[in-house]
Amino acid sequence: MADWPTVKYKEEGMREGMQIEDANISVADKVKLLDALSETGLNQIVVGSFVSPKWTPQMERIDEIVTQFTPKPGVTYTALALNSRGVERARAYSPPLTIERDGYPRLTCHMCDVFVRRNTNRSQMAEMERWPQIVAQAQELNIKEAGIGTNASWGSNFMGEFPVDALMTMLEKQHSMWDEVGIDVRSVSMGDPMSHCTPAKVEESVYRVKEKWPEVNHIRLHLHNGRNMAIASAYAAMRTLGPDDTLELDGTIGGFGGCPYCGNGRATGMAPTEDLLHMMEDMGIPTGVDIDKLIDCVWMAEDIMGRELYGHVSKAGPRPKTVDKLYDMNAPFVETMEQAKHFKKGPEVYEGGIYPYNEPITSPYRDRVEEGTPAYDGPSGDFPWKQDWFPAKD
Amino acid sequence: MADWPTVKYKEEGMREGMQIEDANISVADKVKLLDALSETGLNQIVVGSFVSPKWTPQMERIDEIVTQFTPKPGVTYTALALNSRGVERARAYSPPLTIERDGYPRLTCHMCDVFVRRNTNRSQMAEMERWPQIVAQAQELNIKEAGIGTNASWGSNFMGEFPVDALMTMLEKQHSMWDEVGIDVRSVSMGDPMSHCTPAKVEESVYRVKEKWPEVNHIRLHLHNGRNMAIASAYAAMRTLGPDDTLELDGTIGGFGGCPYCGNGRATGMAPTEDLLHMMEDMGIPTGVDIDKLIDCVWMAEDIMGRELYGHVSKAGPRPKTVDKLYDMNAPFVETMEQAKHFKKGPEVYEGGIYPYNEPITSPYRDRVEEGTPAYDGPSGDFPWKQDWFPAKD
Repeated sequence: MADWPTVKYKEEGMREGMQIEDANISVADKVKLLDALSETGLNQIVVGSFVSPKWTPQMERIDEIVTQFTPKPGVTYTALALNSRGVERARAYSPPLTIERDGYPRLTCHMCDVFVRRNTNRSQMAEMERWPQIVAQAQELNIKEAGIGTNASWGSNFMGEFPVDALMTMLEKQHSMWDEVGIDVRSVSMGDPMSHCTPAKVEESVYRVKEKWPEVNHIRLHLHNGRNMAIASAYAAMRTLGPDDTLELDGTIGGFGGCPYCGNGRATGMAPTEDLLHMMEDMGIPTGVDIDKLIDCVWMAEDIMGRELYGHVSKAGPRPKTVDKLYDMNAPFVETMEQAKHFKKGPEVYEGGIYPYNEPITSPYRDRVEEGTPAYDGPSGDFPWKQDWFPAKD
Repeated sequence: MADWPTVKYKEEGMREGMQIEDANISVADKVKLLDALSETGLNQIVVGSFVSPKWTPQMERIDEIVTQFTPKPGVTYTALALNSRGVERARAYSPPLTIERDGYPRLTCHMCDVFVRRNTNRSQMAEMERWPQIVAQAQELNIKEAGIGTNASWGSNFMGEFPVDALMTMLEKQHSMWDEVGIDVRSVSMGDPMSHCTPAKVEESVYRVKEKWPEVNHIRLHLHNGRNMAIASAYAAMRTLGPDDTLELDGTIGGFGGCPYCGNGRATGMAPTEDLLHMMEDMGIPTGVDIDKLIDCVWMAEDIMGRELYGHVSKAGPRPKTVDKLYDMNAPFVETMEQAKHFKKGPEVYEGGIYPYNEPITSPYRDRVEEGTPAYDGPSGDFPWKQDWFPAKD
């Protein structure tokens, strides 16, 4: 179980997040947040999108942001573009922007014909119509490896649920087109703009993809969180993949975001980056990210947006694991959200809270931990019932 | 994978939730919320706790609540009591309260000696000291089946992380005491008051328990959500258990709750009931609960508390699965949280939003769905490329 895949994480807050927020958030605030994100250790950051300012006024000043932010060496910055005009605009800023994020030519379509029409003004059929051309181009360029994929993979707010069987049939169709020309499929992408993922469906989908095509070693998941399933679904994918696989995941600090076309607006969200990476660190999947700095970014974003976002680790703090991070045994009651922020703001925030003990709390276990000994030794070691203090001697 | 366990769900909002909220929330409001919860189909509801009003003023008027609420036939109502005085107080209200929720005598203790001292004014050693007495009583009563368990199972804000090895050693110690007297262990309980669960740890723990003791067929998990891991951890447990197992889970509507002793206050939370049960329904695990009524309860609770709670399904709405629930293809932009509530409040809330289409959206898929045909037929059926509308004919 501990043979996790490699996970590549992409921070989408500046794009998926900001696109559904107030269009009047200042360029200065956005640049400040983007620069702070660059310092966390995140190595893939989407800076925004090059789309029509008429329908997405939140991205109208993307050129200024791209010009003013401070690119950090080692971080890959990308931007979303939905058509060739957008790609052309983005190219003017490369570098610092990276235009091609993924080397694979990909046959892909939305399972939901309504959503793709609403969001990008084309039909699923139009998406499919491009497939032969994409295959022909790949042949021409002598490309050896390719990708397939779906969006709205598990269901739609406008069409209902799609069984995993339907998803698989769609992927098989795409796969067979690459097979016919002898190009290997290595990557499968599954998107979920309308929050229809569940861990059970994601686990089944990833399992069946790997079962059918073991040589697929890149799985990309873009999961939305309107029904609070994004983190559980990401875990389900992690546990289904192995150490030779790469899992690409997206999310946003604080879990904010969404699009105006999906029908859930700001209630859409994504997996909160800080919560997902905090989980990965605990599982032993390296992220390279400083969670404390990430929490600073969440607090900054909340300050900019003027409201609390959806993540939890930014409110309760990371699990304390080292002696210097452990909470004070004799802390008084911690009740409010403000008091809970002591993990970063210090004990001042809960000072004066109710202290219900007649005598200070002490514990032989805490003594052990403070001496640098694990709370519990291994099975053959000094477990409590072998300690002097253990009352119920054998 | 579809052989899920039976899941028994206990709603903790009136206890875990209310105990960390304003003590001045009126009895009338609490009774109103409790009565609404009774109508959702939930069949286990905790009404509050019989504890010292000095330290938990939020529960000072529990007697009035228990007297005034309307018990629903078929619902089991319980209350928390931490000592014999509390149990005695609760007994005065049985019925409607059920005092014994779980038939198994249980050897249990907190892995965190500091938390148990802070929360219940006794040590882990004192908890263990009671074990021989519990075993002797069970023998006396000729009881054949028993339970074991831990609290703060995976870690503590005051002592750091506990490896699953340590948890297993503790459970083995308890198990061996039942073994010695020939009483079978059927139930393992694992609590997590300080939100140190992760899906990986829960999956490993449940897996190892079942591997070591296949005859254990009841797993009880009380998971807190301060680090947003409760739903993913619940899923991890579900996928690890089989159809002969029963999984007992707790959570709160809206995901609110916590205790003042754990150090995270209101940032602690539990799995939001509506999100967890919505997931289970999607997985085919019957809940018997009307999610729409549950969302009404969340909105009522938010109204009482004067702020948004943490759940998502109450904000974005359930995944629409039937034609009558599908969103309007020609809905305008949905952006704000208020507009997102159209799933319950109707299209009025988004009327006047931006409508970016020159012509109304139409889709042959939507036509299919509205006619009662699945969006996609089975693999051998009328998949898009066999339809007239499919452009890229083979």
